[in-house]
Amino acid sequence: MDENVNKHCSDPSQERKSHHSEKVKKNLVTRLNRIEGQIRGIKGMIEKDTYCDDVITQIAATQSALNGVAKILLEGHLKNCVLDRINEGDLEVLDEVLVTIDRLMKK
Amino acid sequence: MDENVNKHCSDPSQERKSHHSEKVKKNLVTRLNRIEGQIRGIKGMIEKDTYCDDVITQIAATQSALNGVAKILLEGHLKNCVLDRINEGDLEVLDEVLVTIDRLMKK
Amino acid sequence: MDENVNKHCSDPSQERKSHHSEKVKKNLVTRLNRIEGQIRGIKGMIEKDTYCDDVITQIAATQSALNGVAKILLEGHLKNCVLDRINEGDLEVLDEVLVTIDRLMKK
Amino acid sequence: MDENVNKHCSDPSQERKSHHSEKVKKNLVTRLNRIEGQIRGIKGMIEKDTYCDDVITQIAATQSALNGVAKILLEGHLKNCVLDRINEGDLEVLDEVLVTIDRLMKK
Repeated sequence: MDENVNKHCSDPSQERKSHHSEKVKKNLVTRLNRIEGQIRGIKGMIEKDTYCDDVITQIAATQSALNGVAKILLEGHLKNCVLDRINEGDLEVLDEVLVTIDRLMKK
Repeated sequence: MDENVNKHCSDPSQERKSHHSEKVKKNLVTRLNRIEGQIRGIKGMIEKDTYCDDVITQIAATQSALNGVAKILLEGHLKNCVLDRINEGDLEVLDEVLVTIDRLMKK
Repeated sequence: MDENVNKHCSDPSQERKSHHSEKVKKNLVTRLNRIEGQIRGIKGMIEKDTYCDDVITQIAATQSALNGVAKILLEGHLKNCVLDRINEGDLEVLDEVLVTIDRLMKK
Repeated sequence: MDENVNKHCSDPSQERKSHHSEKVKKNLVTRLNRIEGQIRGIKGMIEKDTYCDDVITQIAATQSALNGVAKILLEGHLKNCVLDRINEGDLEVLDEVLVTIDRLMKK
């Protein structure tokens, strides 16, 4: 992982930045491309009057896929940014992460 | 609502079809276009190393938007297809709809 | 199922009543007794300073158990009360059930 | 917070222990007593054939209350145990906490 990028997490004078490795970024983009395709597919299903039970099943699958992306992001966030800020004594990051987790539990 | 379309719900000799009015279909497609834009936006955020807390917030918003689509579909499904099939004495549709609701509760 | 009880579902002059068979009621009460025990167990864990990761796991299990109860109730509701009211032409019950499903999806 | 208790979090030679202050413990126990009462209430509703839409609403309320308990526990866990273990270089705690969060998102 690029240490320069990581510094952005904890240096309050700079805009905070993410910290994913190229490999993780590629994984996330691949997943999001697939999700974009799923959304387009759902649109097509509605336009072709597909039986709505099947459409709802497809929506549930897309939501699971989005959940997968959120989990990867949360893992990266905890293991990089949150960790860095804790190591620098910035404990406010824990309140921030609790708000984020709450959002994911509610969606 | 087009009665011919509705017949598809309950006529087992035909492929089941959805039953949304043009107005509902337009509403759904508009919402899905917006969601597609959100997914593309999330992809851009990841490519530009946006702080992942912000990305997760955007994912949670997209999931809420997808939930909105699922609710409209479920409402249409109950008020048209499920109702038609009940009126024709086909009560299996209730087991089918319980599976669908379960999927939406789990996602 | 007791037909008299069912009438309560659809007769607006009477307080609406549930419609579970004795067998379903026994099943639900058994499950709720177990859940009550789980809650008491969680309380004991907190009083004994059990590692909170283990307590949270126990809470998640209790929530799954409550979900199980909700699903059985929803199934009974759809297959009895909702069905009866639809058969009498009272379609408002569909809006009511959509609100209920929404509550279960949000919790 | 009792430092001795905290040591239990990070000392692998001892059984891990929780770390809540007396005030937090009292808050949690009060909430769990209320939830226990809600469960007993739901049982009574089923025994008295209460309209199941009302029972489901009560279940959804109980699930929200349990969610509240889970959030307080997770906050305490992050701010005490997880933090202590990170400060001692034990980063495995992050994988453990991700599993816990996942459980809460799924329930």
